[in-house]
Amino acid sequence: MILENIHAPADVKALDRDQLEPLCRELRQFLVEHVSQTGGHLASNLGAVELTVAIHRVFDTSRDRLVFDVGHQCYVHKALTGRQELFSTLRQFGGLSGFPKPRESEHDAFIAGHASNSVSVALGMARARTLQHEDYSVLALIGDGALTGGLAYEGLNNAGASREPLIVILNDNGMSINPNVGAVDSHLSQIRSKPAYYHFKKWYRSLFGAHPMENRLYRFNHKVKTSLKKALWPGSTLFEDMGFTYLGPIDGHDLDRLVHVLEWARELRCPVVVHVKTVKGKGYSFAEQNPDKFHGIGPFDPETGLLKKKGGDDFSAVFGRTLAACAAEDGRVCAITAAMADGTGLAPFAKEFPDRFFDVAIAEGHGVAMAAGLAKQGMIPVFAVYSSFLQRGYDQLIHDVALQQLHVVLGVDRAGLVGADGETHHGCFDALFLSEIPGFTVLCPASFAELRKMVRQALFEIAGPVAVRYPRGGEGAYREDRSGQPVVRLRRGADAAILTYGVLVNQALEAADLLAERGIQAEVLKLNQISPLEYETLAPWLSGKRMLAVAEDAFGAGCAGQRVAAILAQHGAAPEKLILINLGKAFLPEGTVPQLQHKAGIDAEGIARAVWEAST
Amino acid sequence: MILENIHAPADVKALDRDQLEPLCRELRQFLVEHVSQTGGHLASNLGAVELTVAIHRVFDTSRDRLVFDVGHQCYVHKALTGRQELFSTLRQFGGLSGFPKPRESEHDAFIAGHASNSVSVALGMARARTLQHEDYSVLALIGDGALTGGLAYEGLNNAGASREPLIVILNDNGMSINPNVGAVDSHLSQIRSKPAYYHFKKWYRSLFGAHPMENRLYRFNHKVKTSLKKALWPGSTLFEDMGFTYLGPIDGHDLDRLVHVLEWARELRCPVVVHVKTVKGKGYSFAEQNPDKFHGIGPFDPETGLLKKKGGDDFSAVFGRTLAACAAEDGRVCAITAAMADGTGLAPFAKEFPDRFFDVAIAEGHGVAMAAGLAKQGMIPVFAVYSSFLQRGYDQLIHDVALQQLHVVLGVDRAGLVGADGETHHGCFDALFLSEIPGFTVLCPASFAELRKMVRQALFEIAGPVAVRYPRGGEGAYREDRSGQPVVRLRRGADAAILTYGVLVNQALEAADLLAERGIQAEVLKLNQISPLEYETLAPWLSGKRMLAVAEDAFGAGCAGQRVAAILAQHGAAPEKLILINLGKAFLPEGTVPQLQHKAGIDAEGIARAVWEAST
Repeated sequence: MILENIHAPADVKALDRDQLEPLCRELRQFLVEHVSQTGGHLASNLGAVELTVAIHRVFDTSRDRLVFDVGHQCYVHKALTGRQELFSTLRQFGGLSGFPKPRESEHDAFIAGHASNSVSVALGMARARTLQHEDYSVLALIGDGALTGGLAYEGLNNAGASREPLIVILNDNGMSINPNVGAVDSHLSQIRSKPAYYHFKKWYRSLFGAHPMENRLYRFNHKVKTSLKKALWPGSTLFEDMGFTYLGPIDGHDLDRLVHVLEWARELRCPVVVHVKTVKGKGYSFAEQNPDKFHGIGPFDPETGLLKKKGGDDFSAVFGRTLAACAAEDGRVCAITAAMADGTGLAPFAKEFPDRFFDVAIAEGHGVAMAAGLAKQGMIPVFAVYSSFLQRGYDQLIHDVALQQLHVVLGVDRAGLVGADGETHHGCFDALFLSEIPGFTVLCPASFAELRKMVRQALFEIAGPVAVRYPRGGEGAYREDRSGQPVVRLRRGADAAILTYGVLVNQALEAADLLAERGIQAEVLKLNQISPLEYETLAPWLSGKRMLAVAEDAFGAGCAGQRVAAILAQHGAAPEKLILINLGKAFLPEGTVPQLQHKAGIDAEGIARAVWEAST
Repeated sequence: MILENIHAPADVKALDRDQLEPLCRELRQFLVEHVSQTGGHLASNLGAVELTVAIHRVFDTSRDRLVFDVGHQCYVHKALTGRQELFSTLRQFGGLSGFPKPRESEHDAFIAGHASNSVSVALGMARARTLQHEDYSVLALIGDGALTGGLAYEGLNNAGASREPLIVILNDNGMSINPNVGAVDSHLSQIRSKPAYYHFKKWYRSLFGAHPMENRLYRFNHKVKTSLKKALWPGSTLFEDMGFTYLGPIDGHDLDRLVHVLEWARELRCPVVVHVKTVKGKGYSFAEQNPDKFHGIGPFDPETGLLKKKGGDDFSAVFGRTLAACAAEDGRVCAITAAMADGTGLAPFAKEFPDRFFDVAIAEGHGVAMAAGLAKQGMIPVFAVYSSFLQRGYDQLIHDVALQQLHVVLGVDRAGLVGADGETHHGCFDALFLSEIPGFTVLCPASFAELRKMVRQALFEIAGPVAVRYPRGGEGAYREDRSGQPVVRLRRGADAAILTYGVLVNQALEAADLLAERGIQAEVLKLNQISPLEYETLAPWLSGKRMLAVAEDAFGAGCAGQRVAAILAQHGAAPEKLILINLGKAFLPEGTVPQLQHKAGIDAEGIARAVWEAST
């Protein structure tokens, strides 16, 4: 076994050339073995095995800075940088993160999780390096999917013009999570099909030596080269126009070529794009055949590729089915996704109503602004998007939607804690920022039944911008439909009132049980909407309480609890005792949702304890 | 006079061809005459005169949808669509907005103010049009500056792939507010210098008739055309690669060509880019020579081009000078702007420290992420940015900066109400969203002296992410330096406490004077930072007040007042009476800052009245 003797990248560098293919085979086995146990991102990591090995043959990631984009390709890197033993804890509470984390290793240059930032971050690092007169390399490793995000374009545009030495490795597997859409994708397809240019360039450079930037003849010939290249390679001008030297496309499973092109890119000392073509899922037939399914996957049987546990129904699926039903009734209803048709449950809608379904690629800002255009002309656009990614459309929500109070509907999926994806993916800001944008109605279903009802309310009953926010996964014990009023009482009790919203009602009800065992009778109240909050609707339920505890899985500053408390206080209706139970200001890592709730003190026990302590 | 008889676009259409040049001359006179009185955006409007006239000759903007990007080019459109008489009220309270506003006219298809959204909005409208089986045209009018924003790229990428008929008019004047930077700009420069292609295309099309999409021969010849074009016109592939039919570049002051190409674009019924080359400031020599100065300008003498009133010192200038002084002392200090070097006061810094000054173009998300990269490698990056544009970097603030608690410093300029630019430009969200991101320190200087001190604190004393927020314009009567403690008392008084932050201390102190006249002694307290807010530091000043009024020019939900009130209540230290004085949920239009403060009830009178009413 070669892999088990790799404790640091230096060990990769020390291997003989003929040990590399066996190492790659072992890495693939390692990935399948571990991810089949823990779940995680498999297909993209399988595709990046040779590329990662090649990077570690050429660069020293303790010094050179390797910035992952999104980070779905970092497992091999983690395995080669001293973290093999931790893979049994992958994406688990207290375990190995599924994304790059500088606090885990000096080999992780930057965090990742949201798409399209890597070139910008790398440019900042490259500029720091140059200003400090250091000489390390800076690399951004970005998938073709992340290229559809405008932030990547902003970064490329600025990096190309900067002349800063930096290397953008474009790992092109022809799909992001769902197959890519958009014009740049067509452009890449075109490039992929033309191998001639790489060979031409190699031949051309062999004539003029290895360090062309220091070679007068090369510079003299640059103009000739440019026009020759344009003739041979019209498709590559996207990056060249931006100021990059374009190298590619390279077979991303050919180790020698990868090493060669990376060495070359390092020596060029200018902005370089290395275009690497890889096969998502490479080397594990189930993943190669079905890379979407094996993108992010739960535990599975490595022999059959079958999931160990069929997931039950979840909020996303219920949302998607409800929306499709609404679309059947009303021709104005459209659905928008940002490369997450499956994740957001929109696949059935897409199939049934292809004309009214728009996948805008990883481009949330555009998704919001396009929805605004649709709404302005009388359609009812629904943008289904993960809470944490909606942050990327914040300005468009204000500028394009709210200023004109357009009837854009948001399906805010993965609202609240999401679990194994960890700190970059938790949806703990939307309850704050959506509620603060004037005119936004923010609905919080706590069960499938309420989700179904509230989607209809959002589409057909409420004017202006509306968000329906719901969590990852399935419903809890609470399965009622108590939608309709802004506030509802789920349980009576004279000693204390627990106010919450969304699926946290389950924890609140459990907390009331725990408190009852200790002789405290707690009322449980549920907000059906956290925005707008009006004194008139809150007062009948919340005025002048003896003790009011507000529990939520959002950050503390600006949370619904603070807003409710202030509104009551303004009207002289404050509770005698106020308890706010939320995430405070701690970003939470990976773990199961119950583990994270427990850590944050927002599980039933934590809520009960907070009330109990305040009562005594 | 021709212009005075234009009451609607139909009147433009009815003019004889030979009346158009005189009309354009009159429009330029009209613009100079009015903007010299009221101030406003002049240079870009002067450049768009013929283009706007041509648009109204070809399209019917009551039906066809013309989406302005940013909107700095909409004055001619407003003058031609029945709003000439209102120009004396331009950018004034209750007057004509300086930006497109659908509530003003059916000819304004959408609001504008923030850059780069127009293609996305237009695509949404085009999709609605097609789904509704309507047949109007949809146009996006975008300047080359706005093309540097990633949102524009997301929109173009998706629009090009969509095949939806829509027309993107690229008004290319070779600069946005400051001269453009970046690779796409070089690309456009390249295109600008090649007139051959347009003529080729014209000739080619004349061979095959006016409706090429319906012409078999044309389609048959499309491949030939493509390769011919590539040979003639390598620079145009950026848009062509994205799926657009590219027409241009056209002389933007040649009416016949403009009309011709727009008619042609309308008939193509596919995504079209019309590339129009204009001269910013055209026809008014002072503006042509100095388009930066005449981009957005105050009242001036039309005979001399000189400003009527020299502006005094302002917060932006003080910020820029302070930062340059800090950069002289510490080589780690860098400055970043998003195309606003002048506006943010960074011009002196740019001149003195060009190596550490980065203009990233209109790309705020990239600016934040690049700053994160710089900070991660040990530099001290300072991103100076208008509050309302910082909204476009919201996700990067969370993901790239806060998750790693990087020491990125924000100079949040134009925080609070900005005045004449109106609702899209007021900075009334940053006090909320920055305060809610865990680990962000948000400092609020109320005077130049405090700004100078707080910039140094932010750079050299405080760890993690820090924002210093300051308003547009100069300081008020309050000119002290009371920085240092989180809370300070500016005036004693036993009957009520007024808490505020930033330059609103001026209104609070005046309100205390007004109240004293009525026999109410009001204490005035000032928050030097609105985040983090900790009970321990608030308590000595704010615990158990009889009456606490919190005044701020931010929206109400999540405001500092709500947060302070909740924190006090959690600790049993709530005031007997709580008064929150803020913008509530009303977007405010254009006007002077005092007018807008008065309207919102946050001027001295409003604050005094609120306290008075609560006292009686």
